[in-house]
Amino acid sequence: LKKIAVIVAGGSGNRMLLQTPKQFMIIHGKPLLFHTLNVFARINDSVSIVLVLPEKHIELWRQLCEEHKITIAHTIVSGGPTRFHSVKSGLKECDKFPDDSVVAIHDGVRPFVSEEVIKNGFEIAARKGSAIPVVPIIETIREVSGSLSKTVPREKYCLVQTPQFFHLPQIIDAYRIPYSETFTDDAAVFETSGRQVHLIDGNRENVKITQPSDILMAETLFEILK
Amino acid sequence: LKKIAVIVAGGSGNRMLLQTPKQFMIIHGKPLLFHTLNVFARINDSVSIVLVLPEKHIELWRQLCEEHKITIAHTIVSGGPTRFHSVKSGLKECDKFPDDSVVAIHDGVRPFVSEEVIKNGFEIAARKGSAIPVVPIIETIREVSGSLSKTVPREKYCLVQTPQFFHLPQIIDAYRIPYSETFTDDAAVFETSGRQVHLIDGNRENVKITQPSDILMAETLFEILK
Repeated sequence: LKKIAVIVAGGSGNRMLLQTPKQFMIIHGKPLLFHTLNVFARINDSVSIVLVLPEKHIELWRQLCEEHKITIAHTIVSGGPTRFHSVKSGLKECDKFPDDSVVAIHDGVRPFVSEEVIKNGFEIAARKGSAIPVVPIIETIREVSGSLSKTVPREKYCLVQTPQFFHLPQIIDAYRIPYSETFTDDAAVFETSGRQVHLIDGNRENVKITQPSDILMAETLFEILK
Repeated sequence: LKKIAVIVAGGSGNRMLLQTPKQFMIIHGKPLLFHTLNVFARINDSVSIVLVLPEKHIELWRQLCEEHKITIAHTIVSGGPTRFHSVKSGLKECDKFPDDSVVAIHDGVRPFVSEEVIKNGFEIAARKGSAIPVVPIIETIREVSGSLSKTVPREKYCLVQTPQFFHLPQIIDAYRIPYSETFTDDAAVFETSGRQVHLIDGNRENVKITQPSDILMAETLFEILK
């Protein structure tokens, strides 16, 4: 069974108020993106890695790889204007893989996904077509509508993470759908194409690094988890 | 205008798999609960602090106060079997305050609420009856129903934090309602009694310390924020 990881690192970094896009920030001595790639590289079975980067960052990433002696094998693909378009570019590169492949589509800024989630995700997606990691919401949530709002039962909702795992031909087919702003993740694309999404347990530490304070939290998490 | 903080620290600590309940963990050299009390003690206007603790932890807290030379003035009240009952005990202690008081009801394990949120919350609640801090949900969320699930538009939802601010007589009256398991926060109690909840912006760092890994993240946040 062929395993692929499409890692999307398209963020422009404007939310960080920093020159360096967040995926290139140095955490624990290496670029954040290295740590994310490394989770897949460390898995026993060989996983082919496709990295989707904005055109303007490809050269920077190559320099970082040289500087930090990063030797993880990966194919670099140029991304598009939105996450949807970037994932589509990544999947296009996967056309060459066999029909029984499974693909993990993952955010470049989530280096803390556990090995267990990855192994489980590939296995479940191979059997069921998809595997989407979710974690419970531990805070109270409210539904807002204009100036009105109401408490909603939180046990009815969950937070969705990446990597999201799919049977390769099915997700390639799903991504033939026209782009919509409501596609905040791949599961939304998959289900809009009429397929059913299968949920699995995620790991809570698998947070998205999006703000300056997240960087220092990430340093701490490395100390705890590695 | 009289300002009161009711701080609820009723957690049994079983989620932490540790002997010490999380509110008593030493972070940045002091018990976590000290840091939470201190946010209110540092506000320029004097805020009366009512601390609700499980009966069995009151002596431990007194010892910690002595050991760590904690001199923040506060009244200690014994809590009940659920958060609802503990808040109710705390509010009973507030009966002695004037009718135009505003009260902030806060989780003992949230030491990172910003001074701005506290000042704004008291002010808005004095004018509008309530002020509930919320932050946007930055991850994708799904609604789960049995084995089925669907993406929901995340901009329609927000995460609710504490402190939650109320006009004192109104929240005391709201808490006359019989207990229900659906009361995960004070806003739910307030709106079930027929009153309307007013949302304000929270600060994202104001997380709940609930797991062992949160403790180390909290240490880091203290370095960044203080």
